[in-house]
Amino acid sequence: MYTLAEAQNLIEKHLHNIKFPEKPAELYDPVRYILSIGGKRIRPALVLLACDMYAGSVDSALHPATAIEIFHNFTLLHDDIMDKSELRRGKDTVHIKWNENIAILSGDVMSILANRFLNEAPGAVLRKVNDVFTLTAMQVCEGQQIDMNFEKELTVEENEYLKMIELKTAVLIAASLKIGAMLGGAPEKDAEDLYDFGRDLGIAFQLQDDLLDTYGDPKLFGKIPGMDIVDNKKTILMITALKNSSEQQREILVKWLTASDFNPEEKVNSVKEIFDQTGVRDKVEAMITDYYKASLTSLHALNVPEERKTELFSFAEALMERKK
Amino acid sequence: MYTLAEAQNLIEKHLHNIKFPEKPAELYDPVRYILSIGGKRIRPALVLLACDMYAGSVDSALHPATAIEIFHNFTLLHDDIMDKSELRRGKDTVHIKWNENIAILSGDVMSILANRFLNEAPGAVLRKVNDVFTLTAMQVCEGQQIDMNFEKELTVEENEYLKMIELKTAVLIAASLKIGAMLGGAPEKDAEDLYDFGRDLGIAFQLQDDLLDTYGDPKLFGKIPGMDIVDNKKTILMITALKNSSEQQREILVKWLTASDFNPEEKVNSVKEIFDQTGVRDKVEAMITDYYKASLTSLHALNVPEERKTELFSFAEALMERKK
Repeated sequence: MYTLAEAQNLIEKHLHNIKFPEKPAELYDPVRYILSIGGKRIRPALVLLACDMYAGSVDSALHPATAIEIFHNFTLLHDDIMDKSELRRGKDTVHIKWNENIAILSGDVMSILANRFLNEAPGAVLRKVNDVFTLTAMQVCEGQQIDMNFEKELTVEENEYLKMIELKTAVLIAASLKIGAMLGGAPEKDAEDLYDFGRDLGIAFQLQDDLLDTYGDPKLFGKIPGMDIVDNKKTILMITALKNSSEQQREILVKWLTASDFNPEEKVNSVKEIFDQTGVRDKVEAMITDYYKASLTSLHALNVPEERKTELFSFAEALMERKK
Repeated sequence: MYTLAEAQNLIEKHLHNIKFPEKPAELYDPVRYILSIGGKRIRPALVLLACDMYAGSVDSALHPATAIEIFHNFTLLHDDIMDKSELRRGKDTVHIKWNENIAILSGDVMSILANRFLNEAPGAVLRKVNDVFTLTAMQVCEGQQIDMNFEKELTVEENEYLKMIELKTAVLIAASLKIGAMLGGAPEKDAEDLYDFGRDLGIAFQLQDDLLDTYGDPKLFGKIPGMDIVDNKKTILMITALKNSSEQQREILVKWLTASDFNPEEKVNSVKEIFDQTGVRDKVEAMITDYYKASLTSLHALNVPEERKTELFSFAEALMERKK
């Protein structure tokens, strides 16, 4: 059995050894660039771990895992254009380092490259793996579109928000595990349980990301706290606060959500005060715990010896314990 | 045996009946839109005709043919963003009708949808078909990148130009035929010959497009003649003129290529005069004839009864006789 760290290393090495075409340089240099500036390779490592659980080997999973990492980076590349982000992992985004046209086209070719790597899956599961992958890829696009739609709204409903993070973030983690399981020859029910584990853990992770943005230790979290509040992001914190606020509290929140000229610190403090008054932190922590527990239930349900699950249990635990 | 027109109709009906997801509307409405505003469905019809030649049926080819039409329209959608084109088939382009982010993301989802339809190919050829398709898709991106690079150049070499149009236009026509043949169970050599037929015909078609832009009958061609000259497009005409011009003629061409303020009619007339003096029209017509003849040689080489080739011969002839 591989450990998560071993799986991550394997992917890192494999990515490093891929020979993308040299020319035209403007098309393939950005592909090399975005794949070289880091990333934890969690998704492809999960493909390997899930495959290993059933096959006792990761051989058939290496190319499909690479496909998922390339696809994930393609979505980051295009999202950065759409969100006008200038930095990704502390480096210039592709559309800043080159230009927008180059970013569009090199993203396009990454999406195609992902399919090319996925096409290396063994014949017995090729169609099924491709089916899960393309459905998931569509859902990731849907999630990004819904997220962009949210920007035009003052507030969004909790269920809409949960659906958005499921599509934008959780389904690709879920599909990574499911595809790995399929490649390893897992029974269908186990593949579905692994999907559910990944989806619920992915949602818990994203909710925790929202929580840490406001309540995380800046030294550990590595970001300036409260930026989501400053940017009027529709996070689970704001949604929960609006849902549980009195008329007066709601008025204050809406005032900040619609203010165009403000002191950021004053805004963060005032909004955070209402978060505290409405018990947002506890409520969101309870939600995270629910999703986390649901994910563990799916993991327990797998029909493999317990010692084969250890690595995924540790992964889930580590993910939930980060930066507290 | 289907005729080309019957194959086009079949595709049109099939496209019309596809149920893309309704939501999010901002993601899928542009997909429905670009697929509904026309297009001659040549590529998918060629998939069907090539399949029919060998299988005597088009059943296994309908979904993969749809994949190729969706992919083709995805490239048009993204190319229109990159080229800042406002019209496509006489209608607003997607980034004009909606916005640039929606155009990027709906294009992304079309590329994925194309893979989803291709995944319906029969298991025996799925991997091979996918391999041809993804390689071709990469090449189309390469062609678009090379074309964008040309915009920064004053002139380009003839062989670079021929490579660019091969990648940007011809390989997808070629791959449509090859994939159709594979789906129909054609021998490998025939699939290759059909690829070569499509590639050479595609190059001939694109060269003819250049010729018609300057020398076509505007009533038949449906465009204002000389726009390529006004826009400093690197066409085979300009490349041939520069290659065959005296120093003095070259100076005049370069003057126009670098002029920022000019009377369009004067520019077109002056450049056309040098085209005439350097025999550009005859030279390009000879090139077109060479590629056309090469394409027919590949068609002759196919190991099927002559009557099964009639439709492709007529197609090639009709393509070369358009708008003269």
